Amino acid sequence: MTPKSKALLAGLKDHDPRAIGRAISAVENNGMEAAEILSALDQDLIDNVLVLGITGPPGAGKSTLTSSLIRTLREQRKRVGIIAVDPSSPISGGAILGDRIRMMDHALDPDVVVRSMATRGRLGGLCASAGAAVRIMAASGCEVILIETVGVGQSEMDIVRLADITLMVLAPGFGDDIQAMKAGLLEVADFLVVNKSDIAGAEALCMDMEQIFSAKEEESAIKRVLKTIATDNAGIAELLNTVNRFSSYIKTNGIKEKRRGRALEAETLDWVFEILRPGLKQAISECSERSDPRVRAQELIDTLNL
Amino acid sequence: MTPKSKALLAGLKDHDPRAIGRAISAVENNGMEAAEILSALDQDLIDNVLVLGITGPPGAGKSTLTSSLIRTLREQRKRVGIIAVDPSSPISGGAILGDRIRMMDHALDPDVVVRSMATRGRLGGLCASAGAAVRIMAASGCEVILIETVGVGQSEMDIVRLADITLMVLAPGFGDDIQAMKAGLLEVADFLVVNKSDIAGAEALCMDMEQIFSAKEEESAIKRVLKTIATDNAGIAELLNTVNRFSSYIKTNGIKEKRRGRALEAETLDWVFEILRPGLKQAISECSERSDPRVRAQELIDTLNL
Repeated sequence: MTPKSKALLAGLKDHDPRAIGRAISAVENNGMEAAEILSALDQDLIDNVLVLGITGPPGAGKSTLTSSLIRTLREQRKRVGIIAVDPSSPISGGAILGDRIRMMDHALDPDVVVRSMATRGRLGGLCASAGAAVRIMAASGCEVILIETVGVGQSEMDIVRLADITLMVLAPGFGDDIQAMKAGLLEVADFLVVNKSDIAGAEALCMDMEQIFSAKEEESAIKRVLKTIATDNAGIAELLNTVNRFSSYIKTNGIKEKRRGRALEAETLDWVFEILRPGLKQAISECSERSDPRVRAQELIDTLNL
Repeated sequence: MTPKSKALLAGLKDHDPRAIGRAISAVENNGMEAAEILSALDQDLIDNVLVLGITGPPGAGKSTLTSSLIRTLREQRKRVGIIAVDPSSPISGGAILGDRIRMMDHALDPDVVVRSMATRGRLGGLCASAGAAVRIMAASGCEVILIETVGVGQSEMDIVRLADITLMVLAPGFGDDIQAMKAGLLEVADFLVVNKSDIAGAEALCMDMEQIFSAKEEESAIKRVLKTIATDNAGIAELLNTVNRFSSYIKTNGIKEKRRGRALEAETLDWVFEILRPGLKQAISECSERSDPRVRAQELIDTLNL
């Protein structure tokens, strides 16, 4: 093991937030340390962490809700990790302005670890990096990890699938697009959080969602549609309470283990592509022929003997 | 060539909308016909088609705008193809309710060809399928192809990159998340369409966006921030006019060719993964060991000699 890996692993054990940041970077850079660090993480801590996915369309108030959740978790003395998946440009450095400002509330708290991840045009790599970040944070003593994505796109949904439990945040006023998302909601989200529940249309949205989620509720007798006003911290404690009850439920009946297993498989596939990607990109750019992409892809697979 | 491929290619030449649908399905099923059809498409038609990407957050009015664009294009006697990328569930069949309803305006018009694509949890495959669909539609005489995505996620952005020109649709009232998207907007979008431009906040949003886009405008002296009220068909003709001027601009100075080349490379990489995916998934699920995904991925690559 390299001295750098050793030092980083020692830092993780000491709950040093800088060690978390450096370890994640080492994995993202996919250097020699990546495998060394990832193989040596404390598996018990990883097994026991609660990974919460928070997703929803822009403007629903995800960041404010995340900040409220962090505050409440800190009152409960939990160490919290946040992975903010950020669709902004690699050029600008990939930090979400709104998040950044709100996170400032917790900036001086060493038990709140924030990692912002730019999507950087990479599809596969993001799932791989986010998965590794979850495990690194967990192995460094984070007890709850929030994965927040801006957007409702497919790759964001897939990243949220790394979570044990997923909250979809909505607010009144998104019109027909919410209708379009309905089926996807049901598939992806365990909980539907109607934020800004004091504004017009909230009641109708709740009733609509309760109808969609009614099948899920039966399974566990746990309420799946919850109301919050994140700016006032209203409904947050109840939300966390309900999530914790659900967390016990999925642990006892094997759902959590099954979800983890699926996530690990998806991440493994992602890493395979991630490791193969640079060589393939090179090979494609060197082949100047303008034949159809599918035809070219098959030729490449045959030539490289993949 | 199989008789099926022959029949489909003949149907494409005859502008038969059913042939388009069947050819795209054949490619998606990745059967024997896929390569045969894709290799035989009319390259001149593909080179000359205008591919417009339309993206933006849920609730901005993308579907209504798309419908208005189709109407105006039909008045100009253009044959139009629409690829609607749909984040909804594979279980529900993957058709966007809102789109479906609005597309009904054009349901009886054989010169408006609509293809809905569910994301189906596949990241790679979608870019590959959408790219193939663009070429099939073009080779069957569609002169303008609109790719509409719901969502502002990374994979949606990547699909939009298949387009020659991308419109980002916004509307007032999305709060801080728009700030977060700013850098990404500039990178991805050629035009910023402020829809619902008659409601409060539109003027401020326009000014904000004009500032961001000012660098782009200089390049071509073409206005990049445009206002529409899609429900009233207001601003649509001017929008199309401006897009057409920009289309000529990117053709003459080689930008279009460069973009197409980049899109073809991305699609090729996508197809490589798509072709490899089933075998890899199988291999991963068969290996029951629960080691770290990155470590497992490297072992798999070594074992399979990739």
